[in-house]
Amino acid sequence: MKRLLVLMFSVVVVCGGTSAMSQEKVRWKMAMTWTSTLTPLANAGPMLAEKMAELTDGNFIIRVDGAEKHKAALGILDMVKGGQYELGHTASYYWKGKDVSSVFFTTVPFGMNATEQYAWYYYGGGLELMQELYDTFDVYSFPGGNTGVQMGGWFRKEINSLDDLKGLKMRIPGLAGEVFAKLGVNVTNIAPGELYTALDRGAIDALEWVGPGMDIKMGFHKIAPYYYTGWHEPASELQYLVNKEEFNKLSPEYQAALKTAIQAVTAEMTMQNFDANARAWAQIKTEYPDIKVMSFPEPVLLAMRQATDEVMAEYGATNELFKKIYESQKGYMAMAREWTKISEFHYIEASEVSGDQ
Amino acid sequence: MKRLLVLMFSVVVVCGGTSAMSQEKVRWKMAMTWTSTLTPLANAGPMLAEKMAELTDGNFIIRVDGAEKHKAALGILDMVKGGQYELGHTASYYWKGKDVSSVFFTTVPFGMNATEQYAWYYYGGGLELMQELYDTFDVYSFPGGNTGVQMGGWFRKEINSLDDLKGLKMRIPGLAGEVFAKLGVNVTNIAPGELYTALDRGAIDALEWVGPGMDIKMGFHKIAPYYYTGWHEPASELQYLVNKEEFNKLSPEYQAALKTAIQAVTAEMTMQNFDANARAWAQIKTEYPDIKVMSFPEPVLLAMRQATDEVMAEYGATNELFKKIYESQKGYMAMAREWTKISEFHYIEASEVSGDQ
Repeated sequence: MKRLLVLMFSVVVVCGGTSAMSQEKVRWKMAMTWTSTLTPLANAGPMLAEKMAELTDGNFIIRVDGAEKHKAALGILDMVKGGQYELGHTASYYWKGKDVSSVFFTTVPFGMNATEQYAWYYYGGGLELMQELYDTFDVYSFPGGNTGVQMGGWFRKEINSLDDLKGLKMRIPGLAGEVFAKLGVNVTNIAPGELYTALDRGAIDALEWVGPGMDIKMGFHKIAPYYYTGWHEPASELQYLVNKEEFNKLSPEYQAALKTAIQAVTAEMTMQNFDANARAWAQIKTEYPDIKVMSFPEPVLLAMRQATDEVMAEYGATNELFKKIYESQKGYMAMAREWTKISEFHYIEASEVSGDQ
Repeated sequence: MKRLLVLMFSVVVVCGGTSAMSQEKVRWKMAMTWTSTLTPLANAGPMLAEKMAELTDGNFIIRVDGAEKHKAALGILDMVKGGQYELGHTASYYWKGKDVSSVFFTTVPFGMNATEQYAWYYYGGGLELMQELYDTFDVYSFPGGNTGVQMGGWFRKEINSLDDLKGLKMRIPGLAGEVFAKLGVNVTNIAPGELYTALDRGAIDALEWVGPGMDIKMGFHKIAPYYYTGWHEPASELQYLVNKEEFNKLSPEYQAALKTAIQAVTAEMTMQNFDANARAWAQIKTEYPDIKVMSFPEPVLLAMRQATDEVMAEYGATNELFKKIYESQKGYMAMAREWTKISEFHYIEASEVSGDQ
């Protein structure tokens, strides 16, 4: 009997010592800003849940709630901070009202492209700066996939000059909205579900949404045929938020599993967004020939750039962290863009010259 | 006593049932094509080893050997197939001699850029086609990080016309070498360690290596000041090879851990390559002002494109799998490039117009 007790004790200790951590059952909940049907964005939750289950023999289970369930699309940060959800998938610039510095971890007008921005996150100090901000909210923040260059929006009328922007009613959130406001645009924000009706009834004259992969399903092209190329969101990064206290309670293996799974899904989400946009773009060319693809004229772009610089300077004057992150991004971008131009940009040009049209 | 026995039995069953797999000690070896100091490429091994250790509480240990140890830089596929190493980090086009179709899983002249190629891998059928080829070698193959656009090489003299290529002695391996050969270049291959001397002594007039991040350390600029932009390796993908039999023996969690870790490291390697190139490019601008950055003239690019099409058609005529993969890449690229042009390319153009020079 005594021997048996010892044996039993040993067994328990062995289990506890080498694998109790990986045996631990974890049940987490994740809230997304997106409704469950808004793909590809809404795939970020289920993909992470699946990877975590695979990595832990089904012991780490994540229940994913879309916005239709939790009814707080723009309340993800508060819910993850408060612990109602251990995880969130969203975008950093939605927290602009709490701290405007949050915009840098999504994208900014005339900022870096996706490759440059990922390199900045990992090798230019971006991840550390992001956590410096999110420490103030008591959560961890990780990159969560990139939409690539977002389109400049749908307009009822062609924009030929700065005059055409004056008095225009447009739905465009974030810093880009502030830039447009400086150019005389009457900027407003409207919930996604009401966008089509607002545009159709003339409550707005123009709107910005995402890119072809998600825009086409909304039907905007039927009532605003001018589709402008992007300048304001060159690399919109999505975001995984993690409740700090709950994360810190996890075993080191589970922490590693979550971080590695997030990194893998982030890469996959970026490819998925690119693929969805490329397919939708091809669809536009064949099925929606009436869409007029336009670029803003040079004087408009110049004015947008100048207004962007003003907006950045104004925030930087009163917000130390904003200034610090802006300078970090600007410095990295100045270096990275030169390489982008001589590599990616030059290559696309060389391909054009020699036959890809 | 009976009750205790039952209890003990339950404990054992719980441990065995849910975590025996993740407790398993695994010791694997990994061979890289690169010497251990050839960063950033050589980081792909240690980074994967570190992630696997973290994910498994130190139970899955990978010993990484650089080429200086195993002395078979271009023997990785054979060694992984044969089981001397369970893992390898290399590049698919080194197996061109075994099956020329292998080139498609690195990059091809005038092919996709990195983003397009990753989207093809994941959402355009690329991963399945890669495995179809590697099934014939009885190994698993995974993408392993991307170098981005490689530079077109270092030349002693400026290339102003097709005539300047005739009789030129150049080290350039792979399909690009075959393309140059069609244009009259005397193509040769030389081991990396002998490249500088060969160029210095005039055994060759030009050579292609990788990109600024790795080229600058080799010193080629001292003896061949013309540095041409890329056309022949627009998105060189690296490769993880895994011994099939050993992989299939792993528990599902370990298999998931390895696949997820590879995916995460692959994304990180791509960023690391971009960052290294961007930093080296900035260094070139300040420290090596004598380097003459050039692009091949339009008639040369056109001839390269035509020769590329010929090379592809010739291989496709005798190799079914080659033809199938070529058509898959071509089809995906035709779609993807349109989106690249309207998104990334247009955005860089808009930024230029408005002030980034």
